[in-house]
Amino acid sequence: MAEHLSQSELDYPFKLLEYFNGFRVSKVIFTACELGVFDLLLNSAEPLSSRTVARELGTSPDGMERLLDALVGIDILEVEVADGTALYSSTDVASLYLAKGSAKSLHDMIIYQSQTIYPLWSNMADAVREGRNQNQKTFGLPPEDVFQAIYRSEEEMLKFMGLMNSSWVLDGHDVVTAFNLSGFQTIVDLGGCTGALAREMAQAYPSSSVTVFDLPRVVEAAQQHFSQENQAVAFHTGDFFSGEIPAADLYVLARILHDWPEEKCLKLLRKIYDACKPGGGVLLVEAMLFENRRGPIMAQIFSLNMLVQAEGRERAPSEYSHMLSKTGFHNIQVCRTGKSYDSILAIR
Amino acid sequence: MAEHLSQSELDYPFKLLEYFNGFRVSKVIFTACELGVFDLLLNSAEPLSSRTVARELGTSPDGMERLLDALVGIDILEVEVADGTALYSSTDVASLYLAKGSAKSLHDMIIYQSQTIYPLWSNMADAVREGRNQNQKTFGLPPEDVFQAIYRSEEEMLKFMGLMNSSWVLDGHDVVTAFNLSGFQTIVDLGGCTGALAREMAQAYPSSSVTVFDLPRVVEAAQQHFSQENQAVAFHTGDFFSGEIPAADLYVLARILHDWPEEKCLKLLRKIYDACKPGGGVLLVEAMLFENRRGPIMAQIFSLNMLVQAEGRERAPSEYSHMLSKTGFHNIQVCRTGKSYDSILAIR
Repeated sequence: MAEHLSQSELDYPFKLLEYFNGFRVSKVIFTACELGVFDLLLNSAEPLSSRTVARELGTSPDGMERLLDALVGIDILEVEVADGTALYSSTDVASLYLAKGSAKSLHDMIIYQSQTIYPLWSNMADAVREGRNQNQKTFGLPPEDVFQAIYRSEEEMLKFMGLMNSSWVLDGHDVVTAFNLSGFQTIVDLGGCTGALAREMAQAYPSSSVTVFDLPRVVEAAQQHFSQENQAVAFHTGDFFSGEIPAADLYVLARILHDWPEEKCLKLLRKIYDACKPGGGVLLVEAMLFENRRGPIMAQIFSLNMLVQAEGRERAPSEYSHMLSKTGFHNIQVCRTGKSYDSILAIR
Repeated sequence: MAEHLSQSELDYPFKLLEYFNGFRVSKVIFTACELGVFDLLLNSAEPLSSRTVARELGTSPDGMERLLDALVGIDILEVEVADGTALYSSTDVASLYLAKGSAKSLHDMIIYQSQTIYPLWSNMADAVREGRNQNQKTFGLPPEDVFQAIYRSEEEMLKFMGLMNSSWVLDGHDVVTAFNLSGFQTIVDLGGCTGALAREMAQAYPSSSVTVFDLPRVVEAAQQHFSQENQAVAFHTGDFFSGEIPAADLYVLARILHDWPEEKCLKLLRKIYDACKPGGGVLLVEAMLFENRRGPIMAQIFSLNMLVQAEGRERAPSEYSHMLSKTGFHNIQVCRTGKSYDSILAIR
């Protein structure tokens, strides 16, 4: 802003007001997802009036009309007026990303952001004051055990798994193809959750065998509630902090290290180093900060998210390299994808 | 999006992710305001390290560092690195608008948005379902009496008054000069709250006498807690729904009608019509929707805000004209300012 927006923003701070309003724009989209607006419009053969949408979804006509109009205002829906009645229809972007049943649905990510992350961020001032997560204040849960909070009920666990699952819709292919991993015969995705990223790996490297390693209850839910099409991925249950991890050529840690403080990261990396076959390696997938601290804004925001929800933080590549070197890994390569998540490959 | 963002958004939905992230960007700014970051930097003679900021404001160093870095990421602060230490300083925009003590401070608007509006919007899905405000679910307050909820405590009343006060920092001058009102000798701002807009009128029309009319407790708080420099504005206590309103040449209703459903608006407009001197008029100041429903997004968002917090809605100029004509007013003129709020003038 100082450089490119300064003068006009000083006259009238349009950009600042847009930032202030950001939470309401988020909630317009989130609310439409929660109510099923995008699914209804995707499946409708013709544009619908607000009255019809309200009736089909069991909402007030007035509230629905305001919601649909705001979605038009941010170009997420289209409207045309026929015989004095406004008729709403989906856009390509909404049809592709926002409906639950759409090809690249981000629906589950949105639900988690709306219902879990939004309330946590209510307490960001306290998180910054205290320097720790706000699970206690937000949900009445102890701050010490992060995953006890995240997995506090079957419903919450499934929502979280939905988040992890739908995130890889966008960045999964890029992060697994950031390096040519075809030389690794056996790949284990530690904390691999629903297997969404593992399936991207199995598809990119069809001659490798790919296994998801996660807690028993997570694996059970993954197999029961999330599509495991083509069975290309195996599942293995365990706890990577307290138990054994299976032997492999390549270990994947995707959005795992960012949950934890350095000493826990080092503990986990040492365990991987010890289990890793000679010539094997580890692939880290995270939203990585720039070394100069000036961005990317997404990684900076995620780092505050780790503060308010977990024990960890986002880090710059140099911080990951430092931990990897300290553990004994070498030949460390960093690849920025230009999207939200980046990759680092290191060899034992 | 359909028109100007379609193809690139289909490849990777950067704009959509920005919308999803909007609530977190809002909260980055809100949190910094709540903690006093902008005041400290405005009053500091030199750039400060995150450690110094944290110590001065009594926060964790780690949380403060992440917050400051995110503010740099959205160009609200600047950073330079000296001898390996990051030093943060304010930008012109932050110094002008974000500190509590800055010349055009929006601080009180931010506090209200963060602490009252943000939690209300948690329940937007229910507001759309039920078609009514969520004061009950959010704050345990009855939905029927909107201002009993808004003024539920001295503290909440002062926060709301701060919101109203600081909003006119931006749009006050434009809405009162949208028409030449110098012909009106006596001007009464109904529900004029702290007198911020009335002072803009007194300044623009120095030969008119300007009076704020509001509830006794509001007037008392306005005089006690908000600067009434140069005494250009008089105060008059009463209730414009249940009591008498003073005679005047011009009545101002700024962000009043949007709180109420049509029948209450008509009741109020009739009362004004009856009290109004011949040749007198009424000035409506509201965020007005486009007739074609496609914007402005700010007014569409405010209309959802009225749903979740009050009984009213934002309207298009034709809806205000309709109510004004029905009451007996004529010579109705609309002026769009191009900012958040617009003006309509009508003559008895």
